[in-house]
Amino acid sequence: MRAVVIGSGAWGTTFAQVLADAGNDVVVWTTQEAVAEEINTRHTNGRHLPDGTVLPETLAASTDLARLLPTAEVVVVALPSQVVRDVLTPYAGLVAPEAVVVSLMKGVELSTLEVMSQVLMEIWDLAPERMAVVSGPNLAGEIARREPTTTVVACRDDAVAHRIAEAIATPYFRVFTSTDVIGLEIGGAVKNVIALAVGIAEGMGYGYNMVASIMTRGLSEGTRIGLAIGAERETFLGLAGVGDLVATCSSPSSRNHRLGSYIGKGLTLAEAVEATGATAEGAKSCRPILELARRHGVKASVIAAVVAVVHEGRDPAQVVRELHARPPRAED
Amino acid sequence: MRAVVIGSGAWGTTFAQVLADAGNDVVVWTTQEAVAEEINTRHTNGRHLPDGTVLPETLAASTDLARLLPTAEVVVVALPSQVVRDVLTPYAGLVAPEAVVVSLMKGVELSTLEVMSQVLMEIWDLAPERMAVVSGPNLAGEIARREPTTTVVACRDDAVAHRIAEAIATPYFRVFTSTDVIGLEIGGAVKNVIALAVGIAEGMGYGYNMVASIMTRGLSEGTRIGLAIGAERETFLGLAGVGDLVATCSSPSSRNHRLGSYIGKGLTLAEAVEATGATAEGAKSCRPILELARRHGVKASVIAAVVAVVHEGRDPAQVVRELHARPPRAED
Repeated sequence: MRAVVIGSGAWGTTFAQVLADAGNDVVVWTTQEAVAEEINTRHTNGRHLPDGTVLPETLAASTDLARLLPTAEVVVVALPSQVVRDVLTPYAGLVAPEAVVVSLMKGVELSTLEVMSQVLMEIWDLAPERMAVVSGPNLAGEIARREPTTTVVACRDDAVAHRIAEAIATPYFRVFTSTDVIGLEIGGAVKNVIALAVGIAEGMGYGYNMVASIMTRGLSEGTRIGLAIGAERETFLGLAGVGDLVATCSSPSSRNHRLGSYIGKGLTLAEAVEATGATAEGAKSCRPILELARRHGVKASVIAAVVAVVHEGRDPAQVVRELHARPPRAED
Repeated sequence: MRAVVIGSGAWGTTFAQVLADAGNDVVVWTTQEAVAEEINTRHTNGRHLPDGTVLPETLAASTDLARLLPTAEVVVVALPSQVVRDVLTPYAGLVAPEAVVVSLMKGVELSTLEVMSQVLMEIWDLAPERMAVVSGPNLAGEIARREPTTTVVACRDDAVAHRIAEAIATPYFRVFTSTDVIGLEIGGAVKNVIALAVGIAEGMGYGYNMVASIMTRGLSEGTRIGLAIGAERETFLGLAGVGDLVATCSSPSSRNHRLGSYIGKGLTLAEAVEATGATAEGAKSCRPILELARRHGVKASVIAAVVAVVHEGRDPAQVVRELHARPPRAED
């Protein structure tokens, strides 16, 4: 299929490689001429992919999205969540009527509390059966090295999910399908916040038991938020729930995880961002996700603790003590 | 409460410490005079607990179970799963009629495919409202050092679960309750097998994505086995499901995890047992758990792969290739 990937970050570029390896005709869109030229001539993306990653020669890059969109059968979007609306609204009307749009993003829009499929369907006037999302235990660096993993493609229309799944399956990328679009997205967005919490706990010196407890309680909060807005519980038990969470929280290279660990060691958010040299989705998304939880009457102690520590300067040791000192009650 | 803990391994001794710290009157039963004397006089258990662990002075040990049982209000069992029936059947009739029996064990009996609560209720003729289980992200070494964590107590009778929860809660041990006894047990038993699979994958050099994929697919198999025999899906998303699984698979000291990693590096089961110097529940339980899955018509590819590699000498690389090469399908 003819595919365009909007965004040349680590995951966008890596996903473009997967598409190319699976036999599709792929162009990556980037705003940076130098990145486009590097991909087109040297077949590398030095800023975002691990040393030694050589992209397929068939993988092209371009800075001209208006020219690419009308002929693309698959439009993959991999931008920072908070810029999607501004960057992509001008292209409404250029997406082909039959094209399927695939979001790789894991965030909640600050101003609207919408997940990315909702934003894209709104700005591009897409029917749900043209909107798919991909999520799973998918650390980009490993996939760029073609190390095997699994993923999930979700679309309200099961046949479309299968069509995209067939189009992206390669020997190293095993694909499952789902119809729970919102579950995949909430799972991914909450995961980033939990990875921050896990990083904070590790930075403070907590052990494996406490880290696993935080991951589990956070996953339970994400599940309840998801259930409140139409997601299915099974999704959170699956590759885009537990799978994505475990991969991110295991990897020392995850941005949210690293950022959290600096904060756990006592740095402020600004200092931690400086130290990691990158913004992390979780630091941005934690507030709208907490707001979403409150709007739906979902208790979210782990997410609230992340907001308190990251954005309100609360002492993490005190926050953990408060979380841990409560009396026995039923698990939920 | 007056409590007896049957078994002086790492988890039994540590749980006895938790009980003592929570203000109970606790005696650990061991068959080994030397261990009893070490606990009574030096307040240590050098073979099973980390260096520097000093047990509470109020924690006693004894080799005379027949004397301890009739007055115990709580009887905690922490033996290797396959010996429970033989070791404890002779004590039927000595357990006080009002005592609650608490299983800490995570295994499936080879000969009957029963979980430990079923074995105990059978041999001691216990009603379900006297049978509780405890499970969660509970690596014994960390709890012995009084590092904070969470756990779940389950009993068919919610009031009994609460009573046990109150009796074991300490500032470092936060307790949740549940009524899903079988879910906790299947979660724990399958976890040991998944930890073996994860160890094997790590030993073979797979990355975080693949390890997370295996954990998730294995958890899904455990969930479906649990659902088939009356467990609740929520349990597998909780502290005794995901939480226990993540703690075990993160910790390099977990026995199942270490044993698997030797097998992944090419050792036979016998060589790996020799190298780790310990038996691992997962290596014993994987066959009865696979049998349980088959009996209930549950597909269990990860568990079957562990059996094939650990007990049938199959090449793990070939097994992984077969698992990974299947076409896209719905996640379950």
